[in-house]
Amino acid sequence: MLPDAIKRRKESTMDELSRTETEQVAGNGLLHRRMFLAGGVAAMGAATTMEPAKAAPLPVEPWMQIPGSPFVGYGQPSKYEEKVARTWASAPGTGGTGSARTPHHLLTGMITPSGLHYERSHSGIPDINPDAHRLVIHGLVKRPLVFTLDDLGRYPMESRIAFLECAGNSGALFAKEPAQANIQAIHGLVSCQEWTGIRLSTLLAEAGVEPQAKWILAEGADAAGMSRSFPLEKAMDDAVIALYQNGERVRPSNGYPVRLLLPGFEGNMNVKWLRRLKLTEGPTMTKDETSKYTILLPSGKALQFVFPLEAKSMITHPSPGLTLRGAGLYEISGLAWSGYGKVAKVEVSADGGKSWGEAALQEPVLSKALTRFRMAWKWDGAPTVLQSRSTDATGYVQPTRAQLIALRGDRGGFHNNMIQSWSVSGSGEVKNVYA
Amino acid sequence: MLPDAIKRRKESTMDELSRTETEQVAGNGLLHRRMFLAGGVAAMGAATTMEPAKAAPLPVEPWMQIPGSPFVGYGQPSKYEEKVARTWASAPGTGGTGSARTPHHLLTGMITPSGLHYERSHSGIPDINPDAHRLVIHGLVKRPLVFTLDDLGRYPMESRIAFLECAGNSGALFAKEPAQANIQAIHGLVSCQEWTGIRLSTLLAEAGVEPQAKWILAEGADAAGMSRSFPLEKAMDDAVIALYQNGERVRPSNGYPVRLLLPGFEGNMNVKWLRRLKLTEGPTMTKDETSKYTILLPSGKALQFVFPLEAKSMITHPSPGLTLRGAGLYEISGLAWSGYGKVAKVEVSADGGKSWGEAALQEPVLSKALTRFRMAWKWDGAPTVLQSRSTDATGYVQPTRAQLIALRGDRGGFHNNMIQSWSVSGSGEVKNVYA
Repeated sequence: MLPDAIKRRKESTMDELSRTETEQVAGNGLLHRRMFLAGGVAAMGAATTMEPAKAAPLPVEPWMQIPGSPFVGYGQPSKYEEKVARTWASAPGTGGTGSARTPHHLLTGMITPSGLHYERSHSGIPDINPDAHRLVIHGLVKRPLVFTLDDLGRYPMESRIAFLECAGNSGALFAKEPAQANIQAIHGLVSCQEWTGIRLSTLLAEAGVEPQAKWILAEGADAAGMSRSFPLEKAMDDAVIALYQNGERVRPSNGYPVRLLLPGFEGNMNVKWLRRLKLTEGPTMTKDETSKYTILLPSGKALQFVFPLEAKSMITHPSPGLTLRGAGLYEISGLAWSGYGKVAKVEVSADGGKSWGEAALQEPVLSKALTRFRMAWKWDGAPTVLQSRSTDATGYVQPTRAQLIALRGDRGGFHNNMIQSWSVSGSGEVKNVYA
Repeated sequence: MLPDAIKRRKESTMDELSRTETEQVAGNGLLHRRMFLAGGVAAMGAATTMEPAKAAPLPVEPWMQIPGSPFVGYGQPSKYEEKVARTWASAPGTGGTGSARTPHHLLTGMITPSGLHYERSHSGIPDINPDAHRLVIHGLVKRPLVFTLDDLGRYPMESRIAFLECAGNSGALFAKEPAQANIQAIHGLVSCQEWTGIRLSTLLAEAGVEPQAKWILAEGADAAGMSRSFPLEKAMDDAVIALYQNGERVRPSNGYPVRLLLPGFEGNMNVKWLRRLKLTEGPTMTKDETSKYTILLPSGKALQFVFPLEAKSMITHPSPGLTLRGAGLYEISGLAWSGYGKVAKVEVSADGGKSWGEAALQEPVLSKALTRFRMAWKWDGAPTVLQSRSTDATGYVQPTRAQLIALRGDRGGFHNNMIQSWSVSGSGEVKNVYA
């Protein structure tokens, strides 16, 4: 709990800020994004009437009285941060089939820590010996090729910061009644890292693509033999054979020692533990692309091979579990992304969608990467509903729940990019609601 | 070892590449950076005369025959990557005084993994309870303030990808004879992550800076009470009170739960475990800024308070320990940075500095962040010397060893940004040399 003096200071500052240089840009206290531009908050000046908190000499804490702990080869988070962990659901005896989710309510920035990147596995994490692992390119090529990791290590590489999102992320929002769940449970199957590897087009140039080849089958070396087909066009555009994430070798749960990266395409197509690429005339119709990962329409028909993920956003702060501590100034912060390119704009509503204000986007804004947005909000303490809405560089606007259901019905689970509504109660509690 | 067929394929490809669409831009086989632009390598086409490697059906490896391992809350690297670790030197009984170094020869991209960020500690890593930790702002301010972590969590935040470099990094290159050491030992005290926190100017606006305040003392909560002074001007420019690195809470070895981030300034000024900021008229002349971190000149005098780190670069691949496997095409890759802003250009020499070719810079190129550069090199197999040279946005050019020693002598250890020379022997072995 805060000492009373500090509480008074904060309230006083908030009053001062809202009285003077701030500009409301949408209903219910949303402030102009200039608050988050360089020096913006400072330029607003500070309260001059508040009571100063006591800044008595700090105690010499116990950890200053003894030498600290020595170096370790590979560092870990603080023991006080144990709750910052992935959560998962996996049926008993299924050997790792399921997914583990990123705790976005406890993180910030655009980069996801490698240990907390979401994971979707179809038969657990294979224990691959990198010296024995091979990547084969075959099918409709002039020269079938086999690569060891050493072979791959000699090719020119490129890096890009890219999001990955499970096609089933946010599927819970199709449920008839809003789940009482937090952002990790609802939206935890999206993450973003710096990936480094070889452009697939480089390897295909070496293999020599036959003219009739139009698709590629990618197969993983897990026990599920997870397999997906993707168009050759994507391979020639921006597909990467990824060997590194956030600077180090790809983690086992993310495909060690090599995964396919198809920027912007649904997560499962970014095949982990990649061992085989076969060039084909058409899609292979593997079990993983016929039994699931299709988009069921109200007509009963389903869309197949809808690969890029549509523009989307979510407010991470506040979100369920992060209770507001009374009326006053808050930063609304969240993440936006699009499988079609850059995020162009994120708008925030503090009145359930009646009015919208434009949020500040944290630079660098990168194509097919998570983008952090921020918005200042002076909450008056009354119950309300918060929403965010992403528009991407193609002009596509993230739909409301009603719009998406009108288009697609509510029986499918994939590609759910509807606007998330968080209710805020008078006591500051945040909940998933439909609004 | 590679099968013979693959070896032949590679040699054949390299020959083909160098015969046809590649353009040599500097002596001894340096190729134009267009090779690394989108589609560049693929556009060069592939060999048509080589013997295909056999791509027989892959064996069903043991890890495909059993379900893999289940989910874990916080992931780790593969057990096969245990050698990818920090190394350190610390005198016995000194309780963590020393530094642990990033293995840049084993990493790539611009982001350093959080577990491998370099660490410089003056009395080990304090075991700080975040609930008890306080940050005080006092001295020449209208309102002395005390912040808990919860208090800090309510302010607007910003993120930036920034490098940190120890002032003593690369000091080994001042030695009379070139150390037989790898890049981790010589240059391992530089790393780069995404940092998120509160602009210091925001907190200072709330405290109210008195007109006579020109400097700030920053004090850490470690047993060394590590303390440095920095100009108020930096605080009002881009200083950040950092709470997160790569998305999660700052790691203990990097200052948990809060550190000062002074982008571009020498590492020790980015005070870890930050507990106190005192606004003052002048520098405080703490033990940490008088007993060390000054730049000794040939005259015997020393420069004090030279804060930003000068433009610099290093070739990470190849580097000592990464032996070249015979003549042919290689990617020369490395990192460049400047404490004064963006990297404008990186040049590479494959003939010991006689001629230079411009490397490709990996986007995004960010101010005061590491920038990955890449250059294609067709090695003819003869012994030679590789160098890289960074130019920053101010026009400053990284000096040669001779130039830096002429300017500063060789008795100081700090701010060593001289050009690194790696010799390559006929057998492909890489060594630190002076050239």
